[in-house]
Amino acid sequence: MNFSFNLIKTDPSGARLGTAVTPHGAFSTPVFMPVGTRASVKGVTPEALREAGAEIILANTYHLYLRPGHETIAALGGLHRFMHWDGPILTDSGGFQVWSLGKLRRIDEEGVSFASHLDGARCVLTPESVVEIQEALGSDIIMPLDECTPYPSSREYAEDSMNLTHRWAQRCKKAKKNTGQALFGIVQGGMYGDLRAASAGAITGIGFDGYAIGGLSVGEDKALMHGMAEAALPHLSAASPRYLMGVGTPEDLVWGVGAGIDMFDCVMPTRNARNGTLFTTNGKLVIKNARHERDPAPVDEGCGCYTCRNYSRAYLRHLYMAGEVLSPVLNSIHNLYYYEWLMREMRSAISQDRFGQWSKAFHEGRNAGG
Amino acid sequence: MNFSFNLIKTDPSGARLGTAVTPHGAFSTPVFMPVGTRASVKGVTPEALREAGAEIILANTYHLYLRPGHETIAALGGLHRFMHWDGPILTDSGGFQVWSLGKLRRIDEEGVSFASHLDGARCVLTPESVVEIQEALGSDIIMPLDECTPYPSSREYAEDSMNLTHRWAQRCKKAKKNTGQALFGIVQGGMYGDLRAASAGAITGIGFDGYAIGGLSVGEDKALMHGMAEAALPHLSAASPRYLMGVGTPEDLVWGVGAGIDMFDCVMPTRNARNGTLFTTNGKLVIKNARHERDPAPVDEGCGCYTCRNYSRAYLRHLYMAGEVLSPVLNSIHNLYYYEWLMREMRSAISQDRFGQWSKAFHEGRNAGG
Repeated sequence: MNFSFNLIKTDPSGARLGTAVTPHGAFSTPVFMPVGTRASVKGVTPEALREAGAEIILANTYHLYLRPGHETIAALGGLHRFMHWDGPILTDSGGFQVWSLGKLRRIDEEGVSFASHLDGARCVLTPESVVEIQEALGSDIIMPLDECTPYPSSREYAEDSMNLTHRWAQRCKKAKKNTGQALFGIVQGGMYGDLRAASAGAITGIGFDGYAIGGLSVGEDKALMHGMAEAALPHLSAASPRYLMGVGTPEDLVWGVGAGIDMFDCVMPTRNARNGTLFTTNGKLVIKNARHERDPAPVDEGCGCYTCRNYSRAYLRHLYMAGEVLSPVLNSIHNLYYYEWLMREMRSAISQDRFGQWSKAFHEGRNAGG
Repeated sequence: MNFSFNLIKTDPSGARLGTAVTPHGAFSTPVFMPVGTRASVKGVTPEALREAGAEIILANTYHLYLRPGHETIAALGGLHRFMHWDGPILTDSGGFQVWSLGKLRRIDEEGVSFASHLDGARCVLTPESVVEIQEALGSDIIMPLDECTPYPSSREYAEDSMNLTHRWAQRCKKAKKNTGQALFGIVQGGMYGDLRAASAGAITGIGFDGYAIGGLSVGEDKALMHGMAEAALPHLSAASPRYLMGVGTPEDLVWGVGAGIDMFDCVMPTRNARNGTLFTTNGKLVIKNARHERDPAPVDEGCGCYTCRNYSRAYLRHLYMAGEVLSPVLNSIHNLYYYEWLMREMRSAISQDRFGQWSKAFHEGRNAGG
């Protein structure tokens, strides 16, 4: 089965409801993708991921390329079999991770070279090699190599960087074999609205199975992030899925869905879980707080997740304070469920043409409860 | 439901098959109890424990007394509800943990005083208080306060220590309320066979619901451990369960069952799991070894555990090398399953009067494979 996307409807507010089909099954949009950086969503089994409501997950090409290596994963039957997740997987291209290395990396026309964070070995990634690596991994959605434009950047740098990303996107498309995997394009353009619009137009012009907005959530304020995404969106094909990379908080997701974005990923639910910060319908809950010491209530009264059905805040606090392995496990299950529940709520609201009201009520509840 | 023990049969070799009934359900003996020191078997949910075959677990009074405190657990409905395990729980008395503190503890007739390993606060445990603490926890089987005799010890020290343990045992029995919880006695006597026999007789004379052999696996060699247990066993009530505390390796369990022991606990399956050492029918497997890098085989070909059904050695090695949270989770599930499988195999062999042959084949397989 090749990749396809069916836009079911657009709510009066602009929020979109859709279904994507991949070689490993379908997922509904708008969708949140839990992050399984190194072929594991930290602490959570695939069965627990499914139970939490996840339909598609993300894995990081950069990390898997370095360890255990894409060839090892290919020899073992591909990423799905390796990690025992039989649903859709999106792999990023490594561009963002390489960018995060700062001075350890060098970018030129050919691609990026960098020192491995594991052993310092010199590595090179090119548009062609990242496609090859992701083909070996066997992910369902492949991302092209891009340069994540630093923030802040001069307009000149942002424009040059954007044009490099466009040339790399063309090389990725050319390199890609007919594997049934989808290839998305990535919009860059720094924090310049006209460049964002131009990039969206150029990437759409090349033609991809879906369109991602990259280079945001890199330190800029929310208003600027929203402005940059909104500058790009009108220039992307309405018939294709739109993916805002690396975003974000529950509030970001609600804003993004309202802006017409279909796909999101973020480490926040699992990272916060490990730090003992839990998402609830009343805002964040810091589990280590002394007031939870004897609290028999679940994290969130209305939540249907495994953790809330079976454990008290008092027990979760105890596990956290004691440094027990089960602490990140149970916290991650809850936070992922919360994120997936939020997406289900939004899909339901869109299907009933009431996303605008739903979104207003969500933000008001946040202001009241938070 | 009060505690009861039904000795179903004794195999010609001396191995025993039984059933114990507790306020939280029954378990079959010989039994292995996974250790949930701080109200959590490290990394494993209660559902996964059940799936691995666990029927009863152990928790440590000393740790729970210090954090979160038995009164907190009682206020939250008891240990079972707190940790979401509705099956039988045995709690130890803290004697062994206090003994492990070395110079930080002081022992006199009244009880033990020590500095908390968490914050240095002075704490006192008496025979009466450890019963009260375990009554508050609501465990199904309570252990009395004992002195774990140091090894090596002079005969004089071992005898005095043993007599102190006997006096404490009487005080524990006297302190215990009629809660339906079982109270076991603990045999001490250091590494002196005649003291072990005398202790078994004295503790049986006081009369308990079951009998534990303590103070072993403290640094002595296997032959000495076996000799000490075997010195005590003939003097224990045959109608009651016999529990060898803190033991042991798979080989220890097979020896112990053959010697007529009914209950075991040990941190080995979970601790080794975290260190990447996995138990198999062919001996131990060190998952970090480079030879597993591309090995698509499960940890143990014939194993029916969740980990072996779904993951390769290569993936488990990757998780271990990457320090992923899922590594101790999946490894622990396998090791616990192996231990529980071993106990089922032994119960099956006893029920068919073939434990002697089974045991011989087990040891021969070890020598061949190991």
